[in-house]
Amino acid sequence: MSKLRLTITMSLDGYVAGPRQSEEHPLGEGAMALHEWFFPLKAFREMHGEQGGEINASSEVVEERRANIGATIMGRNMFGPIRGPWPDESWRGWWGEDPPYHHPVFVLTHHERRPLEMQGGTTFHFVTDGIESALRQAKAAAQGRDVWLAGGASAANQYLAAGLVDEVDLSIAPVILGAGERLFEGLARDSLKLEQVRAVDAPGVTHIKYRVA
Amino acid sequence: MSKLRLTITMSLDGYVAGPRQSEEHPLGEGAMALHEWFFPLKAFREMHGEQGGEINASSEVVEERRANIGATIMGRNMFGPIRGPWPDESWRGWWGEDPPYHHPVFVLTHHERRPLEMQGGTTFHFVTDGIESALRQAKAAAQGRDVWLAGGASAANQYLAAGLVDEVDLSIAPVILGAGERLFEGLARDSLKLEQVRAVDAPGVTHIKYRVA
Repeated sequence: MSKLRLTITMSLDGYVAGPRQSEEHPLGEGAMALHEWFFPLKAFREMHGEQGGEINASSEVVEERRANIGATIMGRNMFGPIRGPWPDESWRGWWGEDPPYHHPVFVLTHHERRPLEMQGGTTFHFVTDGIESALRQAKAAAQGRDVWLAGGASAANQYLAAGLVDEVDLSIAPVILGAGERLFEGLARDSLKLEQVRAVDAPGVTHIKYRVA
Repeated sequence: MSKLRLTITMSLDGYVAGPRQSEEHPLGEGAMALHEWFFPLKAFREMHGEQGGEINASSEVVEERRANIGATIMGRNMFGPIRGPWPDESWRGWWGEDPPYHHPVFVLTHHERRPLEMQGGTTFHFVTDGIESALRQAKAAAQGRDVWLAGGASAANQYLAAGLVDEVDLSIAPVILGAGERLFEGLARDSLKLEQVRAVDAPGVTHIKYRVA
């Protein structure tokens, strides 16, 4: 069975993005600090065509997270800084011409746009008819493999509230953001039955995986 | 050097207590679920004079947290459900006549009250002149040992914001509370420099210890 797997990094005070997202601050102000555990890794450097980098307890987690993923879903704010209707087709994501997905990516938006085919197997599909439609399309595209729910907070919280997430793999960074976009916001008490699968103590971060019952 | 050590259990959505605390719901509604990892432990049962119980990965963490503690600080809501001036001296805490502290406990309150000596070495002192005074008194009482900051959220957040906490040992429970008292609320971005010391994967909970730089 193809699963929907939310993988996301959160601050200790619950934020997955900072305030005032912009082209200059894709993750909002201050939120690059969330990912400091990731940047030194060999896995990160390889994604960007660079040599070297560390292998530590996070490396296996990153590998596990990437395994068996056939499609990705993300919110529109994760795709870019533009709000409202697309002015044209010039915005092509944050990741350059060869994005690190290499599979179909479904972007949740209220505004229609033609699919955007990039290099390396990534095609961005813009889904305007809701999260369930995006999940159906992503699962079909994944051909039996799992679907990665990449964020941001709003997309994650909508899928969590709808009971559509099968697995939450959370990286908790030792960072206080003080403001921004909160994960788990708006969920009612006990609306998710979570079972802890494993926790990994890695340099500068803790990775906790939960199964949603 | 005597340290101030915050030890507290938090839900995945950041709450350390539920809403509507009362005599019936000391931790607020739903928040007993935060502590489900603790109740089956031998260490918990022993605290209540009972036999048996589990020893698992949490046991060593609980032991480490209790070691070298000479005094405790808590907020007034953690001591009891009464708000405003004390009507009389009949409320003697949630823990019966032999509370599980066995050392001086400093209760932050705006309302004066005489010290309350219980059995087993626990005396509750009511501190009305602020968090710094409570910390000075607790450190003096601890005689070189550490001071445990037990909560709740408001007391913890005041000490964190004032930069007075040396160590944060957080238990993260796989629970969504949806409402209540949030830890780390009101802290500005980067107001705490936290360094992850260790994370422990235990049944139904993850324990993460941070040093405050």
